[in-house]
Amino acid sequence: MKTSRNGTRRRKTKAITTAKAGLPPGSLVHVGAVKTDRPEITLIAYDENGIEERRFASIVESREYTPAHERLWLNVHGLQNAEILGEIGRRFQLHPLVLEDILNTHQRPKIEDYGSYLFCVLRVFEYDAASRTLGSDQISVVLGENFVLTFQERRTGIFEPIRDRLRAPLAPVLKRGTDYLAYTLLDAVIDRYFIVVDQLGDTAEQLEDDALASPTPALLRTINLVKHDTQLLRRAIWPLREVLNSLLRGESAFFQQDTRLYLRDVYDHTIHVIETLDAVRELLGDLMDIYLSAVSNRLNVEVRILTVLTTLFLPATLITGIFGMNFERMPLIADGQGFYVALAIMAAVAAAMAAAFWRRNWLRL
Amino acid sequence: MKTSRNGTRRRKTKAITTAKAGLPPGSLVHVGAVKTDRPEITLIAYDENGIEERRFASIVESREYTPAHERLWLNVHGLQNAEILGEIGRRFQLHPLVLEDILNTHQRPKIEDYGSYLFCVLRVFEYDAASRTLGSDQISVVLGENFVLTFQERRTGIFEPIRDRLRAPLAPVLKRGTDYLAYTLLDAVIDRYFIVVDQLGDTAEQLEDDALASPTPALLRTINLVKHDTQLLRRAIWPLREVLNSLLRGESAFFQQDTRLYLRDVYDHTIHVIETLDAVRELLGDLMDIYLSAVSNRLNVEVRILTVLTTLFLPATLITGIFGMNFERMPLIADGQGFYVALAIMAAVAAAMAAAFWRRNWLRL
Amino acid sequence: MKTSRNGTRRRKTKAITTAKAGLPPGSLVHVGAVKTDRPEITLIAYDENGIEERRFASIVESREYTPAHERLWLNVHGLQNAEILGEIGRRFQLHPLVLEDILNTHQRPKIEDYGSYLFCVLRVFEYDAASRTLGSDQISVVLGENFVLTFQERRTGIFEPIRDRLRAPLAPVLKRGTDYLAYTLLDAVIDRYFIVVDQLGDTAEQLEDDALASPTPALLRTINLVKHDTQLLRRAIWPLREVLNSLLRGESAFFQQDTRLYLRDVYDHTIHVIETLDAVRELLGDLMDIYLSAVSNRLNVEVRILTVLTTLFLPATLITGIFGMNFERMPLIADGQGFYVALAIMAAVAAAMAAAFWRRNWLRL
Amino acid sequence: MKTSRNGTRRRKTKAITTAKAGLPPGSLVHVGAVKTDRPEITLIAYDENGIEERRFASIVESREYTPAHERLWLNVHGLQNAEILGEIGRRFQLHPLVLEDILNTHQRPKIEDYGSYLFCVLRVFEYDAASRTLGSDQISVVLGENFVLTFQERRTGIFEPIRDRLRAPLAPVLKRGTDYLAYTLLDAVIDRYFIVVDQLGDTAEQLEDDALASPTPALLRTINLVKHDTQLLRRAIWPLREVLNSLLRGESAFFQQDTRLYLRDVYDHTIHVIETLDAVRELLGDLMDIYLSAVSNRLNVEVRILTVLTTLFLPATLITGIFGMNFERMPLIADGQGFYVALAIMAAVAAAMAAAFWRRNWLRL
Amino acid sequence: MKTSRNGTRRRKTKAITTAKAGLPPGSLVHVGAVKTDRPEITLIAYDENGIEERRFASIVESREYTPAHERLWLNVHGLQNAEILGEIGRRFQLHPLVLEDILNTHQRPKIEDYGSYLFCVLRVFEYDAASRTLGSDQISVVLGENFVLTFQERRTGIFEPIRDRLRAPLAPVLKRGTDYLAYTLLDAVIDRYFIVVDQLGDTAEQLEDDALASPTPALLRTINLVKHDTQLLRRAIWPLREVLNSLLRGESAFFQQDTRLYLRDVYDHTIHVIETLDAVRELLGDLMDIYLSAVSNRLNVEVRILTVLTTLFLPATLITGIFGMNFERMPLIADGQGFYVALAIMAAVAAAMAAAFWRRNWLRL
Repeated sequence: MKTSRNGTRRRKTKAITTAKAGLPPGSLVHVGAVKTDRPEITLIAYDENGIEERRFASIVESREYTPAHERLWLNVHGLQNAEILGEIGRRFQLHPLVLEDILNTHQRPKIEDYGSYLFCVLRVFEYDAASRTLGSDQISVVLGENFVLTFQERRTGIFEPIRDRLRAPLAPVLKRGTDYLAYTLLDAVIDRYFIVVDQLGDTAEQLEDDALASPTPALLRTINLVKHDTQLLRRAIWPLREVLNSLLRGESAFFQQDTRLYLRDVYDHTIHVIETLDAVRELLGDLMDIYLSAVSNRLNVEVRILTVLTTLFLPATLITGIFGMNFERMPLIADGQGFYVALAIMAAVAAAMAAAFWRRNWLRL
Repeated sequence: MKTSRNGTRRRKTKAITTAKAGLPPGSLVHVGAVKTDRPEITLIAYDENGIEERRFASIVESREYTPAHERLWLNVHGLQNAEILGEIGRRFQLHPLVLEDILNTHQRPKIEDYGSYLFCVLRVFEYDAASRTLGSDQISVVLGENFVLTFQERRTGIFEPIRDRLRAPLAPVLKRGTDYLAYTLLDAVIDRYFIVVDQLGDTAEQLEDDALASPTPALLRTINLVKHDTQLLRRAIWPLREVLNSLLRGESAFFQQDTRLYLRDVYDHTIHVIETLDAVRELLGDLMDIYLSAVSNRLNVEVRILTVLTTLFLPATLITGIFGMNFERMPLIADGQGFYVALAIMAAVAAAMAAAFWRRNWLRL
Repeated sequence: MKTSRNGTRRRKTKAITTAKAGLPPGSLVHVGAVKTDRPEITLIAYDENGIEERRFASIVESREYTPAHERLWLNVHGLQNAEILGEIGRRFQLHPLVLEDILNTHQRPKIEDYGSYLFCVLRVFEYDAASRTLGSDQISVVLGENFVLTFQERRTGIFEPIRDRLRAPLAPVLKRGTDYLAYTLLDAVIDRYFIVVDQLGDTAEQLEDDALASPTPALLRTINLVKHDTQLLRRAIWPLREVLNSLLRGESAFFQQDTRLYLRDVYDHTIHVIETLDAVRELLGDLMDIYLSAVSNRLNVEVRILTVLTTLFLPATLITGIFGMNFERMPLIADGQGFYVALAIMAAVAAAMAAAFWRRNWLRL
Repeated sequence: MKTSRNGTRRRKTKAITTAKAGLPPGSLVHVGAVKTDRPEITLIAYDENGIEERRFASIVESREYTPAHERLWLNVHGLQNAEILGEIGRRFQLHPLVLEDILNTHQRPKIEDYGSYLFCVLRVFEYDAASRTLGSDQISVVLGENFVLTFQERRTGIFEPIRDRLRAPLAPVLKRGTDYLAYTLLDAVIDRYFIVVDQLGDTAEQLEDDALASPTPALLRTINLVKHDTQLLRRAIWPLREVLNSLLRGESAFFQQDTRLYLRDVYDHTIHVIETLDAVRELLGDLMDIYLSAVSNRLNVEVRILTVLTTLFLPATLITGIFGMNFERMPLIADGQGFYVALAIMAAVAAAMAAAFWRRNWLRL
Repeated sequence: MKTSRNGTRRRKTKAITTAKAGLPPGSLVHVGAVKTDRPEITLIAYDENGIEERRFASIVESREYTPAHERLWLNVHGLQNAEILGEIGRRFQLHPLVLEDILNTHQRPKIEDYGSYLFCVLRVFEYDAASRTLGSDQISVVLGENFVLTFQERRTGIFEPIRDRLRAPLAPVLKRGTDYLAYTLLDAVIDRYFIVVDQLGDTAEQLEDDALASPTPALLRTINLVKHDTQLLRRAIWPLREVLNSLLRGESAFFQQDTRLYLRDVYDHTIHVIETLDAVRELLGDLMDIYLSAVSNRLNVEVRILTVLTTLFLPATLITGIFGMNFERMPLIADGQGFYVALAIMAAVAAAMAAAFWRRNWLRL
């Protein structure tokens, strides 16, 4: 079990070295774990007149199709097939570095303006509360004037509610440009963060209970692991703040004035999720103190038991020693009940002491 | 009790996910706990000629009313009735995102300029010193050219003194614009912060006494909880600083030059309350050290008791052992008073040691 | 004693809530402790031709007086008489907020430009090394084109050397404008800071000696209290840095070019006092480590005593046990000197062990 | 072994004092360890028409050679021969300070624009996981309009893949300017950082296992040493961020617009490697807590053993004392099996207690 | 010894209060310790034609001298004679504040542009490794168009190599302006920092060895003292960074374009020395952890000894108790060798236990 845990962390901190070593920059190679067996291409064409939806199993299939509506949303699940990406890149005239970044699923969140389109890398997370592991997927978004391209490592279901909304007859989103669609995608990603942050918060509270109940070094390791996860999450969300801020300042022409009001809302949510995450991280930081204090208290309790034991037995042992001395004349010795009197004294002293400890709450472990 | 405490904290850090999941952005749904049974609308119309005050139980009632004075202050207690908000939004031409933010009571404090009005979200706090829980309410303020709208989750009484001042005949505030009214509202909110910060400071000092008297892990948990509360408070006040600063720099046209001098005063108060809060937080941070040191000291005391006990009994036990040896010739053995002489030696040694410990203050628990 | 200490701190962190609650902003009420029984007004009129000095017990007295020199320095000790301030305010045309800030002696240091005069709030400190309490007074300075007004809570004597310098015949300061006088006032305040910081540094070094000699939780509390005081001091000096910097940049027209060179000097001193204070704070931070380490060491020493005791007595007790066994044939038993031989063995073993401990320095408490 | 470790660290932090003391600035002296016996000069001349490659053992050899292609890449391994550098400096008209910086291998990474060329100092690392030592080499790059000069302390092999790529017939890199070559060199250096950071991450995880298994002060020292190494690495990478950022902002004319897109990629990688390194540093910081907690736990375990032992023996010893008393009438004494009954009681009490400890897991070390 | 240590620190943190109290600003009084008995004035006149060097014991002597070369370097050792400074000030037309700053040897490093000259305050350090005390001297430099003035508290020898270089016939420095001379002075000061930082680094490593070998609270105090010294050093070097940066940006006209390239070099060295110092400070910070961990380990070892002792003696004591019981029938009692059998059992049990402890390494102190 320990091995697998270390393995998990190593995957997280491991960089992009091995797969790319020796290759010239710009080669189209998928870097990262393959997370789905069969890639799938989904195309939604829409405008104020309606919506049309297609699914293609291969890039060949899609070649003959001409969409009947003005705006396009092309989504790809599964990135292992570099050929698909190559053809999409040619059709939408994407820069080789963009394709490379889409395929290399270890990117930091960022936004880059390539003149005729905006390229955006996002990271969504999934927290498995049972095994306390944080998984993540990279989602790349390309926003052009009349198209949005999204690339995911596997089917995450994160964009399903948006598709449902598009399918509704006369949906308001149909009347708006692709920048509004891009906003709803961003909004969906941020909403997912809230869920993961809440799960991490629940885990932290669970760990707080554990730390008070049974402080073990293994628990400390778990606390650090969760702390590490929150740090990972923060590092993924933090750049989003910058990105949104630059979009808000109107540095990019791809978002229209009225959509920018909505982006301000997404920005607020991002700040909110960062603050909630910071609260979780503080709680985890305090956990360390609680843990160390619980360990100290346990030591106190154990020293106290030792003290109690010594205290209960030392007088009795002294009494046996006294009556074990070899003086020729000693009181009670010749008395037939002397032995029992001695035992009674021992018991009485021990009982008196036990009562004193009881009052001090020292007999509670 | 523990469950409820965890529950409390969870409510605080829990984000806005569940209620909003699946809904398109912009839907008017109240997010947050319902804190009053019956919403109430209060309308104050005033200008230099006088003041008129009305209360409406429903939005329908208010439709027929035409105010006789130029400037309006409309206050709503209770937000669960989205219909009220919808109608107010239509009348004062508020943007859907504003209405959404008013209803979602998990907003961060912020100020947003919508061109024809200024939208401001504030958070007021209430500290229950007995149960050591910090409650908070969201207050939204909309400042237009001749109107101020305020929205509260429940009747907090925080604006009551301002109403009293308005009702005074020839009150100077009547002669001034709605921006001055907005300033007095802000001032009232900041004053409330001072009260809560003082209460937290008193709690921190109480905890300091407790930490020195009886350091238990449960106390540590309480300290962390209060620390968490101060953090929460700071996070709510901090953005206000930015907001006021931007108003001071004259970025918004809604505050006139002479009102801005007063805003500078509110700004000073905000800085002051933040610094006072930081002093409380430092005290709480030091508490952790005091607590850990008190735990260490208790361990020292317990080890010392063990040492004292051992020291008092070991010589006596050795003496009993000596006279318990089976040598044929031993001094005192045949002496009739030998037994008592041995006991006296034991008592003398123990008394001498006890006296030594007494001088060292080691007998004090 | 504890109560009073808590009381002291509470006074420091307590905010301005109670005295002002319910009053409209701008009312002239003295907020803070009354520190002198009879307010006093001192007026110094000076220019290159000479100097004239007057003292007034009430504001009424001063009405008939017309100064013979061009530049005025009006100083007020004691602020409880709001009437005095009201009249001064009217004569020098001060804004109501300025008067309010002068009377409310819980202001943060700040400088504000009101167009026709500069308003400056400073805080001077006094450290009582015996009781380890830090007291502070607010000093407000108003600098106009030909006048300087200073307001103090009580007679602090801080400006006395400046008065002496003015009284010297043909003093160079007489030839210069009121901005140079304002500079000497600032310089006097900063010099006072140096004294207080040195006192705090001495206290910190005293506490370091105490921490090594006798680490008690009460000492820890004292350390935290002094740390709190340095924090308080820093918070009062820090804004001065900003204020002086803005004056240096020439943002205010009240300081002439050649006086600004002197302000640069005051700025350097302020940085210097902040750095000295930071050195003291570091020392206090390290004190915590020294204290905790001293507590740990004491625990080590106590465990060591326990070990030494056990080690000295266990072999002797074992030997008594051995000769206390009831075997029919045992060596030495029948020997007339056997008892003393056994005692000698016990003593020898104990002495050998004591010597070993002596070499290890374990007998030192 | 300890001496060598200290020696290692000292070499790292030791500054450039001794070798340079007394010399006028600008003297050409190699400062640093000599890492290769024979310096070697490699010259690659290339343009879109082809590539030509030469190796020279001395600078004299190279004088007669005239390259057939437009762009030059001159690489020097081994810097102890100041003469080589002097001649290269004269040929390419480098400033004396540049030559001095190349020879002094204790430079911080930096980039400097000398008008007709760009001078860049980089630092590459090598981590020996077995001995846990971090070695570093300085690489200096001079980028002129049609030439790139690289200077290395020894053959590191870091640029070998780039040479291979140049040698490929019709390699795309041949068609691009020397700025693109400089970019590939930078890219190779950053890739090397990823490898070293991964190795440090593995070491940190190994140390985490060790800290839980056997916490010794020596381990703590190792943890601090690795922490020191990560700090060293960070300090070398951090300035690169600035350097790349300034190149991205187009402050230097040596990188063309289309190469700058690739630099943005290198910049992203640099941020990524810094973040990965920060994750490693956090892990190392947490290690300290895990270590201290493991030490505390071991103390708990040892106190517990003491308690268990005392608990097992005290009752038995008391029982022997009881039956060792000299009362004339005692139960069991005259009984032939009395002795065994007493032993049985002792064993029973000890067994009962052992069972209780077993249930509490106190017998596990 | 303790007193002197405290005294040392007090001198360091003590501010400039006492000597200046009551004096008007601008008075020429030497503030600080007098470090040399007889002040000395050295004058070097030089230009491309040669160099002339004179020494004057008093300012009177120097009046009749007219230098034969264009550029002047006037150096003063010993500042207690305010008269010297006054005359120099009048001759070179220095501002009174400059003279005051030169005489007050508690200045922070800074650079100030007075229009016709540049005034620069530096601080050089000297570390006495034996007594672990850090001494410092203030060096003031005034750079005019054709002169450089340097003022030192005593003969530090820091500028001796520069004088030697000037004395060399046809030295390149003679051909350059006084700004180049000023650069070499700065360079010499920075080089001295490297030496002191290396000494502090060696001390820190020595302390690390001590912390592992014998952790005492006095050592902790020494660690904090050295930490304090590094802090002091950092505070003196840090402003230099700013100063050099402003010179590099060309804010001052006193450094010509080609000299600025050399200043960039000095700037790099300053950054390097700061980073080396930071590495030393980190090491000192880690020392605290190593120290605390060593203290903890010593406690563990002592508890372990207690456990071992108890474990070795308890069984033996129990056995003596068993054979000391007064049962009429006991095995071995009547056996002539019984006594020795019992002793053998005791020894065997103790030996078995000792062997077990040996395997666990518990007998190692």
